[in-house]
Amino acid sequence: MIFYQNYNIMKQEEINFKDNKDKFLGGYIKTMNILVINCGSSSLKYQLIDMSNESVLAKGLAERIGIEGSRIKHEPTGKDKVLIEKDMPDHKAALEIVTNALVDGEIGSIASMDEISAVGHRVVHGGEKFSASVIIDENVMKGIEECINIAPLHNPPNIMGIRACQELMPNVPMVAVFDTAFHQTMPEDSYIYALPYELYEKYKIRRYGAHGTSHKYVAYRTAELLGKDLSELKLITCHLGNGASIAAIKNGKVVDTSMGFTPLEGLIMGTRCGDIDPAIVPFIMEKENLTPSEVSDLLNKKSGVLGISGVSSDFRDIEDAMAAGNHRAKLSLEIFNNAVVKYIGSYAAIMDGVDAIIFTAGLGENSKEAREEICKYFTYLGVELDLEANDMRGKERVVSTENSKVKVMVVPTNEELMIARDTLGLVK
Amino acid sequence: MIFYQNYNIMKQEEINFKDNKDKFLGGYIKTMNILVINCGSSSLKYQLIDMSNESVLAKGLAERIGIEGSRIKHEPTGKDKVLIEKDMPDHKAALEIVTNALVDGEIGSIASMDEISAVGHRVVHGGEKFSASVIIDENVMKGIEECINIAPLHNPPNIMGIRACQELMPNVPMVAVFDTAFHQTMPEDSYIYALPYELYEKYKIRRYGAHGTSHKYVAYRTAELLGKDLSELKLITCHLGNGASIAAIKNGKVVDTSMGFTPLEGLIMGTRCGDIDPAIVPFIMEKENLTPSEVSDLLNKKSGVLGISGVSSDFRDIEDAMAAGNHRAKLSLEIFNNAVVKYIGSYAAIMDGVDAIIFTAGLGENSKEAREEICKYFTYLGVELDLEANDMRGKERVVSTENSKVKVMVVPTNEELMIARDTLGLVK
Repeated sequence: MIFYQNYNIMKQEEINFKDNKDKFLGGYIKTMNILVINCGSSSLKYQLIDMSNESVLAKGLAERIGIEGSRIKHEPTGKDKVLIEKDMPDHKAALEIVTNALVDGEIGSIASMDEISAVGHRVVHGGEKFSASVIIDENVMKGIEECINIAPLHNPPNIMGIRACQELMPNVPMVAVFDTAFHQTMPEDSYIYALPYELYEKYKIRRYGAHGTSHKYVAYRTAELLGKDLSELKLITCHLGNGASIAAIKNGKVVDTSMGFTPLEGLIMGTRCGDIDPAIVPFIMEKENLTPSEVSDLLNKKSGVLGISGVSSDFRDIEDAMAAGNHRAKLSLEIFNNAVVKYIGSYAAIMDGVDAIIFTAGLGENSKEAREEICKYFTYLGVELDLEANDMRGKERVVSTENSKVKVMVVPTNEELMIARDTLGLVK
Repeated sequence: MIFYQNYNIMKQEEINFKDNKDKFLGGYIKTMNILVINCGSSSLKYQLIDMSNESVLAKGLAERIGIEGSRIKHEPTGKDKVLIEKDMPDHKAALEIVTNALVDGEIGSIASMDEISAVGHRVVHGGEKFSASVIIDENVMKGIEECINIAPLHNPPNIMGIRACQELMPNVPMVAVFDTAFHQTMPEDSYIYALPYELYEKYKIRRYGAHGTSHKYVAYRTAELLGKDLSELKLITCHLGNGASIAAIKNGKVVDTSMGFTPLEGLIMGTRCGDIDPAIVPFIMEKENLTPSEVSDLLNKKSGVLGISGVSSDFRDIEDAMAAGNHRAKLSLEIFNNAVVKYIGSYAAIMDGVDAIIFTAGLGENSKEAREEICKYFTYLGVELDLEANDMRGKERVVSTENSKVKVMVVPTNEELMIARDTLGLVK
């Protein structure tokens, strides 16, 4: 249990949740706290953010919802971390514990649920319906349900999370923030595939992209850091984590992004193949006698750096294996870097130039080696990496030299804050 | 029959093939004529080239072999074109008529078959076995047969063509020139897909590329025209025809190319989809209840500019429809251009710069509009198109300005000549 060494491990029965109100004497406290919720099929991530100064009051993760051994890792800012072990049959049960923890006198962060002004929900797929965040009503719920067809794994748990919140906090306004929305500015010639057009009309098969909230946060933050208006910049944002995508953002609008109809397309990832010859799919199916869902599984879960290396889907493991002389581990990283280099190059072309290349997410923020390997290819653009500035993990800074014609930056992403900002903007 | 307006149409029985030898008085004539053969499943293209000056003596196309209405369009240089209508049950029958025509006293170009020094065969797939052209022996035939697995539609007719020639010209040396060979210089990190590595080991699923003979011809010719050594150049060769591919050629070696395991990957084409999210394949199969071979058919034959536009797979028809205001026709061309722009951009990145961008094949040679649209995106590389020089069809020339930092060129491809050169080089 080394992972939990910093947590106080508690059984649910050991915690005597009690209202925190008595701590706040003297009546009405004006707050603007936003609860950010991100539900997976068996997980619920949350963050409570005080928007007066954009500080995190508490955050956590409920895991194994509906599975034996469910638990919540709760991290109140300035207090000890708590691991709550308790059966959680569904998202509503998980959310009840989370909200109890938030208002608890010992481990809580707020006096009562009244201090949550709004809830911002991450929703994976907004299809073509949602090109921006929206206040949730039944019409919006219908729209999110209609997108289940193109996001069968992701939208259902998002919907469960929203429904659970609505039951527990019936009077709190809720906002849906879509992972696809920021990319909805893409022009038609970027999002239409060269397939029979009827497939677009019938099934809405087109490029949607993903990680939109991250690309949006990073783009706005970059403009802020450069002291420029986003509407005058050509940016390439590289969200490089276990899932990875790149976006070309021109004058504040996404003009292209590497993920497509699903998050399988584009860069190679931990376990996802990224771009391949589409003819390989039926070829493998015939040779290995696979069904559509089996081949989909192979491409999504057994490919990527894991598939090439045979070692792991985790880039840290791959780097270790490479250091120990594993050829296929090295090869998988080279192929990953190549893919990033080619996307950056293609997006510089589609925008006729680039002002800044920005790295974010796990690998982008933390691997100076990846940034160095990738930037080596761009001397033709006048990119000059500042090796000293680049020699760090997870810091927000410019890592190119003064003379570099293209700025290279690291901007740690903050999807939760972006969701909270969008939520605040809509409910204020 | 407007297509044949320049041909003298003849039934086979009207032609009295007779040996041409009596025309050449005085005995032994030293020649080095190479016959170039390119067999499809129901077609046989040929060219007889006099390698003393690389001039074409005759060329032609046998069509509908094994199908009702088979015919040969024979074009002897300096003489009237002839359309020979005759049943041809197989490639051997077609080749017999072709060779008869070549030595015929009226429509022929040589005195006898003795004047054919060697035959160069285009072979579509050489797999990993063949990284250069080779003199054909039974071992080579075995190697070509082993590649049927990865080129089931193309290698069998190539083999039929070679076998037919061997029977008719048993003493003439034959050379196999592979469409994949030039790309075999690609490094591992360009040709390995991010799939389970076992699929490469088991089925040799990897990037092979295609149009290699064309990219090779164009690369060598470009170096010649620029008065430079190929080994000091970074080139991006754009073979844009009904099938289309791009190659990044650094110091004479292909470092990447857009076609992959099959010619489906990469750019969008007449009827091929090019790059799409691989997850779309199982999605369509499930929704439309398609088998692997049916979905393969959809991606290869019903997609591309045809699929988007709904108009045609022929770029000339698309341009006409666009001019008439058809939105989807316009869209299909924009998507095609975008794909070319992105590949050029990505290859400039992977080579850290580019010295020349070269357009070839049907659209590349003939569409000044496509060249203009594409080059517009590259002002960040210092590309400056010379609109006047570019205002032409099919001419070999530099179409960028004197000041352009990257040369833009049109170099009409000549795969047959490249095959003949390789053949000559091996048999000499």
